[in-house]
Amino acid sequence: MAEFQTGLPSSRQVQIAIREKKDVEVKLLTDDLILGKVSWQDQDCICIIDQYDQPTIVWRHAIAFIKPKS
Amino acid sequence: MAEFQTGLPSSRQVQIAIREKKDVEVKLLTDDLILGKVSWQDQDCICIIDQYDQPTIVWRHAIAFIKPKS
Amino acid sequence: MAEFQTGLPSSRQVQIAIREKKDVEVKLLTDDLILGKVSWQDQDCICIIDQYDQPTIVWRHAIAFIKPKS
Amino acid sequence: MAEFQTGLPSSRQVQIAIREKKDVEVKLLTDDLILGKVSWQDQDCICIIDQYDQPTIVWRHAIAFIKPKS
Amino acid sequence: MAEFQTGLPSSRQVQIAIREKKDVEVKLLTDDLILGKVSWQDQDCICIIDQYDQPTIVWRHAIAFIKPKS
Amino acid sequence: MAEFQTGLPSSRQVQIAIREKKDVEVKLLTDDLILGKVSWQDQDCICIIDQYDQPTIVWRHAIAFIKPKS
Repeated sequence: MAEFQTGLPSSRQVQIAIREKKDVEVKLLTDDLILGKVSWQDQDCICIIDQYDQPTIVWRHAIAFIKPKS
Repeated sequence: MAEFQTGLPSSRQVQIAIREKKDVEVKLLTDDLILGKVSWQDQDCICIIDQYDQPTIVWRHAIAFIKPKS
Repeated sequence: MAEFQTGLPSSRQVQIAIREKKDVEVKLLTDDLILGKVSWQDQDCICIIDQYDQPTIVWRHAIAFIKPKS
Repeated sequence: MAEFQTGLPSSRQVQIAIREKKDVEVKLLTDDLILGKVSWQDQDCICIIDQYDQPTIVWRHAIAFIKPKS
Repeated sequence: MAEFQTGLPSSRQVQIAIREKKDVEVKLLTDDLILGKVSWQDQDCICIIDQYDQPTIVWRHAIAFIKPKS
Repeated sequence: MAEFQTGLPSSRQVQIAIREKKDVEVKLLTDDLILGKVSWQDQDCICIIDQYDQPTIVWRHAIAFIKPKS
């Protein structure tokens, strides 16, 4: 994976989700659906905080898609 | 992943789909089928807007294929 | 992924399939089987045209194998 | 994969889990769930010690997510 | 993927299988089992010729394992 | 994949398994479980010898985890 580029549209969208504490759905290649707010991202992972304030560190290579919680 | 190359046929086809607001089907490795219009692409992701105007940020590594909506 | 190398046996075999308009089967990691003729390839994707002249842009990372249509 | 960067948030969270001997759940792309304490990490793998003191060397590319044991 | 290194034990084992026309089983991540003789390899693919002399170009990223036909 | 680094903890653990002829379980992303002794490793593959002395060349990208045979 190339160096993490904060200027990419995808990185910026995730950054906006962090700043605005948006609820998101993260669908994984395992078919797991992780629900919560994004607390941080780095080049390898995205961390989701669920409604019980528990963090899940999700590996980017396992993410299929992210969308606003419907 | 190498630097995003806008000159590649695949990048240009996606760019044309964006410009012409074509409806596409994006089949993922999870077997999910995402339907909608492509709104942007970067080196890691492609964003699809569905009929309710909701965005889904799809990771390229999770894409199996893209085709015009049939 | 390294720069696309047109001199590789695998790239040349795909190039021959394009030039000779051969019917191929492309088996994906999703277990989808895409049938048709290869119209172009680049470092990320291979495009298959089906019998209704519809293109499917297949990501290389999703390809398990390609073989002549049996 | 780029050189292992110990300064990344994700690497530091795993390092904290090692130091504090936290119980974690590691969900894999195979859907296996590995439970135990993290004993070490390097750029390719993370090692989990289960309750019987047996090590499992997990490849990072196979990890979907890590979370504190619930 | 790094440049193809013909000196690696794994590359040499495949090269020996080519030279000695050994029958092999190639298990893919799709769970497909490809049976036949290896005809060539490059950095992206391995080509297997089945008993009807049909080639299957298998992508390395889709290979789980190769073993002598049992 | 970066150059194979023999100094990594994960490479050294595999090296110890080779030297001490330990029985291991290798779980693959296909859910296959390969049992046997590790005979060699390189940057792309790990070779497992089963109880009938048959080699299986396993691709690293297909490995979920390795653990001592229980």
